[in-house]
Amino acid sequence: MIVAGSNSQGMAAIISRELNEKLVMIERKIFPDGELYVRISSEPEERAIVVQSLTPPQDRSLMELFLIVDSLKGLNVNDVIAVIPYLAYARQDKRFLTGEPITLKVVLDTLRGLGVSKVLTVDVHNEKQFKKFMGDNGINILPTEIIAEYFKDRLSSNSIVLAPDKGALWRAKSVAEKLGLRYDYIEKKRDRTTGEIKALPKELDVSDKDVLIVDDIISTGRTIALAARNLKEKNAKKIYVACTHAVLVENALDRIYQNGVLEVVATDTLPSPISKLSIAPLLVRYLKQCLSKI
Amino acid sequence: MIVAGSNSQGMAAIISRELNEKLVMIERKIFPDGELYVRISSEPEERAIVVQSLTPPQDRSLMELFLIVDSLKGLNVNDVIAVIPYLAYARQDKRFLTGEPITLKVVLDTLRGLGVSKVLTVDVHNEKQFKKFMGDNGINILPTEIIAEYFKDRLSSNSIVLAPDKGALWRAKSVAEKLGLRYDYIEKKRDRTTGEIKALPKELDVSDKDVLIVDDIISTGRTIALAARNLKEKNAKKIYVACTHAVLVENALDRIYQNGVLEVVATDTLPSPISKLSIAPLLVRYLKQCLSKI
Repeated sequence: MIVAGSNSQGMAAIISRELNEKLVMIERKIFPDGELYVRISSEPEERAIVVQSLTPPQDRSLMELFLIVDSLKGLNVNDVIAVIPYLAYARQDKRFLTGEPITLKVVLDTLRGLGVSKVLTVDVHNEKQFKKFMGDNGINILPTEIIAEYFKDRLSSNSIVLAPDKGALWRAKSVAEKLGLRYDYIEKKRDRTTGEIKALPKELDVSDKDVLIVDDIISTGRTIALAARNLKEKNAKKIYVACTHAVLVENALDRIYQNGVLEVVATDTLPSPISKLSIAPLLVRYLKQCLSKI
Repeated sequence: MIVAGSNSQGMAAIISRELNEKLVMIERKIFPDGELYVRISSEPEERAIVVQSLTPPQDRSLMELFLIVDSLKGLNVNDVIAVIPYLAYARQDKRFLTGEPITLKVVLDTLRGLGVSKVLTVDVHNEKQFKKFMGDNGINILPTEIIAEYFKDRLSSNSIVLAPDKGALWRAKSVAEKLGLRYDYIEKKRDRTTGEIKALPKELDVSDKDVLIVDDIISTGRTIALAARNLKEKNAKKIYVACTHAVLVENALDRIYQNGVLEVVATDTLPSPISKLSIAPLLVRYLKQCLSKI
């Protein structure tokens, strides 16, 4: 059975149809005092795949997932797989400073403690840390091919794919390689004469070229907006932006478009006006493989 | 060390002073996307008592508690005791219907999974279920004596203490016994002539008597408002209401006062205009006992 968390009903419906498994909607209400209530009224099956993206408000979305999992375990569902297209709290994946929590670990350990056997997510912030906490029971799916597919007719052959920083270069690289394009990462540097911070490709010249910036999350969009402005100053032609998770806070889209970006697209792990790329086919393909092995 | 969750800074300060233990405030912020961040910058000690009431928004309060506990474990604090004056999600303490979660169990199991050794709470909805999930590591403190103390000069000797229903009679009984008063519970009955629902004491006559209704939680206050109106119709004199947790939703206080209640008081497990009875002395007394044993 495919259980649809309230944030991912559409995605659960596609997965249900493609896997030919029963779609189960949950009963969900908020008590007058603000507590969440869920119930699963459907006949249980041996295995349940719960689909719930952790959209803001993240704590509520997470609590709903916890309660769904506990309901399923109470129904004696043996195997509970959590499909979490956007895994909130994934950026605090280590103790950067003494006295910090590891929020990624708190979320994953809690899910396992409640009885989740596998967590399937999309483009988690740090796959290494995710694997450290989940081992082979954590599956991270990358949207490389759906981003490449969307841009293959939009970008000319001398276009450049850029990562917003060095750590994200591998993501830009994998999209670039699918498209047969060159790639680089953006480096922030202080201009020696003006003192201004500039965000420009480390090596490549963008003059008269189209550019695609590939990132995992767009939050405030400040880095991308700065880079777009600087790329325009260096005579870049069309500037496109693709991201996996459209978190989009503080008027991110306004900021990005106003600095010269032609189009921004994201996958539909989070709902937004730019969430045009459906991630469902990749989830379905993985789940089919995964279930055929069991 | 006493760690103050953001909902319980005053209570943590009192506990710190009375136990002569260091008070630790947490660093706390909300990221632009809505995720919570906490950090404990203080030097860790062998044992930490975290004080955090689960006030609305409950999911956020709970997440803060989870993250504080994980931070403390990351600092190698050996023994983490959670003092949770108001334990949210405690009313769903069993699977009343098939397919429901046990929210109480989800909260307690998660706390234990993160490394909490003991949970100290106040007037939990169902002590038996709480003990079932926590065993001897779950401590439930009753505010009986502080309620009795507050009302001992307000109630005359022929006053009556009432529970809002049969299941809560033990709570009214314990307050009544401290005050040397009679007690009863309120029963809802449909009036045979008018068809109206009446909420009145099962046995005792309230005519010309003062009444104190004792409850654990006031949420919408509808039951108490109905009872107060019916008690007034039966010529009750002064009507007082005492509760442990002032959840107070949907204009509960208006509803209660408009139906003839003279005064409503609550403990300070939750913040509200009626949270006048400090629970801290009881927590301090228990913690002193508990810590002297370790």
